[in-house]
Amino acid sequence: MAHVIKAVDENYEARVRDSFGRQPAMRLIGARMGRVEAGYCEIELPFRDDLTQQHGLFHGGFTSAIADAACGYAAYTLFGAVDSVLSVEYKINFLSPAAGDKLVAIARAKKSGRTLTVCEFEVLAAKGGEQVLCACGIATMIRLADRPDRPQAG
Amino acid sequence: MAHVIKAVDENYEARVRDSFGRQPAMRLIGARMGRVEAGYCEIELPFRDDLTQQHGLFHGGFTSAIADAACGYAAYTLFGAVDSVLSVEYKINFLSPAAGDKLVAIARAKKSGRTLTVCEFEVLAAKGGEQVLCACGIATMIRLADRPDRPQAG
Amino acid sequence: MAHVIKAVDENYEARVRDSFGRQPAMRLIGARMGRVEAGYCEIELPFRDDLTQQHGLFHGGFTSAIADAACGYAAYTLFGAVDSVLSVEYKINFLSPAAGDKLVAIARAKKSGRTLTVCEFEVLAAKGGEQVLCACGIATMIRLADRPDRPQAG
Amino acid sequence: MAHVIKAVDENYEARVRDSFGRQPAMRLIGARMGRVEAGYCEIELPFRDDLTQQHGLFHGGFTSAIADAACGYAAYTLFGAVDSVLSVEYKINFLSPAAGDKLVAIARAKKSGRTLTVCEFEVLAAKGGEQVLCACGIATMIRLADRPDRPQAG
Repeated sequence: MAHVIKAVDENYEARVRDSFGRQPAMRLIGARMGRVEAGYCEIELPFRDDLTQQHGLFHGGFTSAIADAACGYAAYTLFGAVDSVLSVEYKINFLSPAAGDKLVAIARAKKSGRTLTVCEFEVLAAKGGEQVLCACGIATMIRLADRPDRPQAG
Repeated sequence: MAHVIKAVDENYEARVRDSFGRQPAMRLIGARMGRVEAGYCEIELPFRDDLTQQHGLFHGGFTSAIADAACGYAAYTLFGAVDSVLSVEYKINFLSPAAGDKLVAIARAKKSGRTLTVCEFEVLAAKGGEQVLCACGIATMIRLADRPDRPQAG
Repeated sequence: MAHVIKAVDENYEARVRDSFGRQPAMRLIGARMGRVEAGYCEIELPFRDDLTQQHGLFHGGFTSAIADAACGYAAYTLFGAVDSVLSVEYKINFLSPAAGDKLVAIARAKKSGRTLTVCEFEVLAAKGGEQVLCACGIATMIRLADRPDRPQAG
Repeated sequence: MAHVIKAVDENYEARVRDSFGRQPAMRLIGARMGRVEAGYCEIELPFRDDLTQQHGLFHGGFTSAIADAACGYAAYTLFGAVDSVLSVEYKINFLSPAAGDKLVAIARAKKSGRTLTVCEFEVLAAKGGEQVLCACGIATMIRLADRPDRPQAG
């Protein structure tokens, strides 16, 4: 495929981790950022009893939450230093019960244009040494040019 | 339209509220079930600082979580007393910033078949007397026949 | 809801019908534009044997095609005289067999921003005096500002 | 991943090609079935002037039509000899202009359960020796058990 995924801001990883660190919602559920590369982001969610639905599995709302966040940050790695990112929409399919020690959402930018970036994601449930694909989907992100994610001093 | 949405279990509201009450995840974020009717369900999420993203708005993950839950329960109102419900997939569009005193997810069954039920939803952000449409989407739910949501005594 | 759907180009209907008329694909399948209003568009597809799948129903590909087109034009009614429109993405649920004398795709803009417009749609199958809801979905459209749909003389 | 994609009917390829051959809609647009494997299907659409939108590109409706069909048949390879397949829903993102000598929709089953099969797809536009990714998406298919796609002799 001719389309190249490339970061324009070499400081993208620090920028992404800093933004993630300022999200109270991710702290509430205990989500952690994993590997970050240009056009790529992983977010992990270790199991906790208060993250479950009525059958003791991870609640689908949190499966979605880390998938959406991973896609947003996979896109954000490709943006400029003073841009920010918003989710336009996403679609998720639930494939298997989300049971295990942790969930890992893995997002990859599939196409990144001037305004929109499309990411695909998978969510794996890890238990012992095994991983089960429990969800997959596609998300569309929009770049807000020249609107920094972090308020400027001033 | 010829298609009729009708409950087969007259006890559906108690069954739905009971199931919702057994979800630790909904308790963690402080979600509350609102109005429930045949093929219809509302879930509210009052604002809390720990539900936000980096700009102080409701995190999209929770917008999705209550939308998905509302769709699941809108479908579940239409199922039999010993069936359970699972999310197959959903798609959500984020339309406006989710700012306000609370979010309200409103789900309606659009078509309910023997196996699959399709719901549409809106999420409104309420602030003072005003409401802003902040997300909309469509979800597909599957009926698991004769698999009760609540473990039977034995 | 506070959000107002309003046309900025009073000549929108002629512009939309002109654009539709220049689509060979719509001519191939015999699709016709119905009612057009600000943020609203209908496209009809009369039954023909060569539009069917193996069971004699309308092929889902054409159900989607007129739904996508109706959403594009519903969005396009709201754009400026020298803008054009592209589909970013859509999601469709098939609810009932697409059997009948014609299909009617009905699209409404749900939110129209500077760049993106989100539409919802339904596709009805009309047979005799009755209509059956056979598909529904949501589409995201992008405005290409100052890029006319029709080549300018020059 | 532990999930295995495997055909249960060894005659799947003939069954799939036979079903495709009975679709008048695919004939109308000139679509051709390419490679078929267990959980995998390609459908090609050679360029024709009457398949275009107003700018001379492939119409998005046909991009979707072959993607949906490829997903349906990728799922159908995994079904039993007397089952049939229906599209439940799909979501498509348009990534690049669909320009070229032909489109190729490539679908892969990602998870195949007793009732539902989820496929992902890409649509490539081929021009000369080059291929451009012009769309991607996810589709959910349902198995109708013991309802043959082809009417039985009686």
